[in-house]
Amino acid sequence: MGEATTGAQALLTTLADAGVEVVFANPGTSEMHFVAALEENPRVRGVLGLAEGVVTGAADGYARMTGTPGVTLLHLGPGLGNGLANLHNARRAHSPVVNVVGDHATYHKAFDAPLESDIDSVAGTLGWVRRSHSPTDVGADAAAALAAAQDAPGGVATLILPADASWGEGGVAASALPSRAPEPSSTVDPVAKVLRSGQPTALLIGGAACRGAGLRAASRIAAATGARLLAETFPARIERGAGLPNVERLGYLAEQVEHQLDGVRHVVVAGAKPPVSFFAYPGKRGDLVPEAAQLHTLASPTEDAVAALDTLADDLAPGVAPVLAEPHRPALPSGELTVQNWVEVVGALLPEHAVVVDETNTSGLLLAAATAGAPAHDVLTLTGGAIGQGLPAATGAAVAAPERPVISLQADGSAMYTISALWTQARENLNVTTVILNNRAYAILRMELQRVGATASTDPASASLFDLSAPDLDFARIAEGMGVPASTATTAEELADRFRRAVAEPGPHLIDARIPPLL
Amino acid sequence: MGEATTGAQALLTTLADAGVEVVFANPGTSEMHFVAALEENPRVRGVLGLAEGVVTGAADGYARMTGTPGVTLLHLGPGLGNGLANLHNARRAHSPVVNVVGDHATYHKAFDAPLESDIDSVAGTLGWVRRSHSPTDVGADAAAALAAAQDAPGGVATLILPADASWGEGGVAASALPSRAPEPSSTVDPVAKVLRSGQPTALLIGGAACRGAGLRAASRIAAATGARLLAETFPARIERGAGLPNVERLGYLAEQVEHQLDGVRHVVVAGAKPPVSFFAYPGKRGDLVPEAAQLHTLASPTEDAVAALDTLADDLAPGVAPVLAEPHRPALPSGELTVQNWVEVVGALLPEHAVVVDETNTSGLLLAAATAGAPAHDVLTLTGGAIGQGLPAATGAAVAAPERPVISLQADGSAMYTISALWTQARENLNVTTVILNNRAYAILRMELQRVGATASTDPASASLFDLSAPDLDFARIAEGMGVPASTATTAEELADRFRRAVAEPGPHLIDARIPPLL
Repeated sequence: MGEATTGAQALLTTLADAGVEVVFANPGTSEMHFVAALEENPRVRGVLGLAEGVVTGAADGYARMTGTPGVTLLHLGPGLGNGLANLHNARRAHSPVVNVVGDHATYHKAFDAPLESDIDSVAGTLGWVRRSHSPTDVGADAAAALAAAQDAPGGVATLILPADASWGEGGVAASALPSRAPEPSSTVDPVAKVLRSGQPTALLIGGAACRGAGLRAASRIAAATGARLLAETFPARIERGAGLPNVERLGYLAEQVEHQLDGVRHVVVAGAKPPVSFFAYPGKRGDLVPEAAQLHTLASPTEDAVAALDTLADDLAPGVAPVLAEPHRPALPSGELTVQNWVEVVGALLPEHAVVVDETNTSGLLLAAATAGAPAHDVLTLTGGAIGQGLPAATGAAVAAPERPVISLQADGSAMYTISALWTQARENLNVTTVILNNRAYAILRMELQRVGATASTDPASASLFDLSAPDLDFARIAEGMGVPASTATTAEELADRFRRAVAEPGPHLIDARIPPLL
Repeated sequence: MGEATTGAQALLTTLADAGVEVVFANPGTSEMHFVAALEENPRVRGVLGLAEGVVTGAADGYARMTGTPGVTLLHLGPGLGNGLANLHNARRAHSPVVNVVGDHATYHKAFDAPLESDIDSVAGTLGWVRRSHSPTDVGADAAAALAAAQDAPGGVATLILPADASWGEGGVAASALPSRAPEPSSTVDPVAKVLRSGQPTALLIGGAACRGAGLRAASRIAAATGARLLAETFPARIERGAGLPNVERLGYLAEQVEHQLDGVRHVVVAGAKPPVSFFAYPGKRGDLVPEAAQLHTLASPTEDAVAALDTLADDLAPGVAPVLAEPHRPALPSGELTVQNWVEVVGALLPEHAVVVDETNTSGLLLAAATAGAPAHDVLTLTGGAIGQGLPAATGAAVAAPERPVISLQADGSAMYTISALWTQARENLNVTTVILNNRAYAILRMELQRVGATASTDPASASLFDLSAPDLDFARIAEGMGVPASTATTAEELADRFRRAVAEPGPHLIDARIPPLL
């Protein structure tokens, strides 16, 4: 080379050599040398987010679609803080995500300058953390971070990069390190015995088992044994639609799960965690495995659920075919938009090969049924319950899969946490169609206020803290203000018209779909 | 009473008895009983933010204006994460802020449900943390949190409230506890000797000393001794304008500070931290006390700087009056908006008794000079460097001081982190005039790219990650989409016209002021 290499340059080279093509970034002064290296390195593209929740959610969406690390660049502790909620979702999705968090120069930390804070402790709540101490370490530390993020089943790794480790010379790029593969299941035989028993059994799949091979194996097992097949409540990525097994997801509400698991004597989990209530409710059980049922783990999240299901299918269901969804679309509905009919518009018009990002909350209860026979598509869901994930994840998914239409179905309240993701969609000309389900309420909280029995005297519909109608949010104007063409729909016909046009045109589009709240 | 009291009700009563009138909130299911108690308690008002950065920044702005605790309600770890950056700013401002962070019921945590995360470690990076264990503890824990937040000089205290501690019965409201008063200075005499020496001395004030009494005492000392009087770079709240001492703030750039402190032999700090560089730069000093100068602490941030300055003034400057700014306003400028002339519009038209929230970054370099003789006003600044603080702080300041006009001067890039604060301003009909300095760039980062010497080959103006012009942000549309009336100005005449009208009308207004970037 001849020229000296900075720590930042070594970091970029290490990332690029490992196959990283995109860094989602919201940089500041302490990250300047990384930015300079990024601007100079044609192999890695910087995608700017105007807030760190967009950056981290996009990295998660990107990782879910590519299976490779989503890399972020964040500005000290406050940047990490702003990105923390969507990193929580990424952690729950087992998405491989590597954060590069810039920090003050090592010798500057003692001054307790205004931006000084305890980055290490905050990052430590997410998983693997390392702090580089000199330019010579940065390449190796980055390789270690990439490997840690990809250790099965995938997770969040944070590399803290002091400014002097970034700008100093003596940087050495490092080669990719191996990461930990999923372990083989050790319980195939006992689970086979359970499934052969003929006793009522639920098979709950999650993680990688929610995609093609895992779905087909699980469907064969269910067909052969009569087991009820379910997918985890909030999969990171699930494949579905015509030609794929249609697997019902475990309900969000404990009451739904009770119904789904009613009467089973065995619950087998494969790549999923045992079913638990999302929240606790006074006087209700949190463990949703029925009291009369036994729990069996075919594969924990760190084990290879797909291989285990394959082995089990070959054993229990030789010659049995999976049950595949037939192509079927609902008829286009008409009239005022409702929670019932908007999903039919999407089901009727979902384009081929779509990626659906679903953060519809209460408005989307009927979405799965309406799209079960639509062309095969992926669905990304809100894995960690930290709302404000949909628009960023759709952004990252579109960066990852520019040839696929991304359909971002988004509740209004949740949209506002990370609304500036729209600007990144416009800037990158991403093929994302956003439908805001604008019911002018935190409708789920109205429901929850009743469910937790918080009060007899407060009418949920009148609880002022759940009301988003004063003033109404006009998402079309907000989107246009960020450079995203937008429209509004109040009837099913209008939604169909806007949706068709949005999907047909290149680049992003937002539709503000005005629907009445469920409550 | 007769009726059973829940932990949540005891918490609300404890807050109300201590004088808390407002809770800034973004609640979720685990906070439902707190919400129910809030809806039922007429003494405490809930103010909704659509993202937690708005909630925490508003609590900070409220605390700065009232001197009493700004209280937040946040939803588990992700809610705290989203609010972390503005809590960082609150910590640096020494604002008394109490976070109530809801968590899963105690017995639910073992299930590792989707929203489970390590709240305690994240909150611990901010200061005082306590986790309530039962309904009977909640009142006393809340009283302890309020006291901790108000321990001199003020800080962030976090109470983690498990859902079952909130909903359970047996709650007991607690009386307010005393908090730690500022300690008296022990160095008045030696500092008096320094100031009498006749050697060139800088007096750097901060914290409470940036308001009336402290400013006047410091001005008298400077007038009597010839000391250079400076205020800290980013005061939480500084009073200025006609009839008050006009105290120059220490520069943001180390180069400015070198100039301001050039030739001094002594630097005396009173309520301020010793001057340090905001960031480290290769080959430059971080400690900005000149090498030939000695540092003296009249009052650390936990000591009573105002009393120490008063004593010192009585000693050194008996009969000497403070130097007060004369009323003076710049003439109204004309022509295209520039970094130079927009500040003159504000200086010419600033209403009486205004609260100015300044997050103008590079666009506001000339603001102080243009408003030095305007009617007396308070200025709130970005204390911790975590951008996205201005719109929320203006929101909280307006809730705290509804009778005062709040002028929110806001850089474009920074505005986008917490833009939904505008919605809360509309919902609460707050008297906030926001001027967005829309230069379509992260201009400060262009400057910093040059200052850190990151690269010879990258033209700062071409660094794509600092460019916000593709697409342009149309803040008037964004504001209207959130229910805030808005206008756009491209000339000084237009800005003057819009500003006059915005200040005259009740409720919020936003002006998108298009100015060229500094770089």
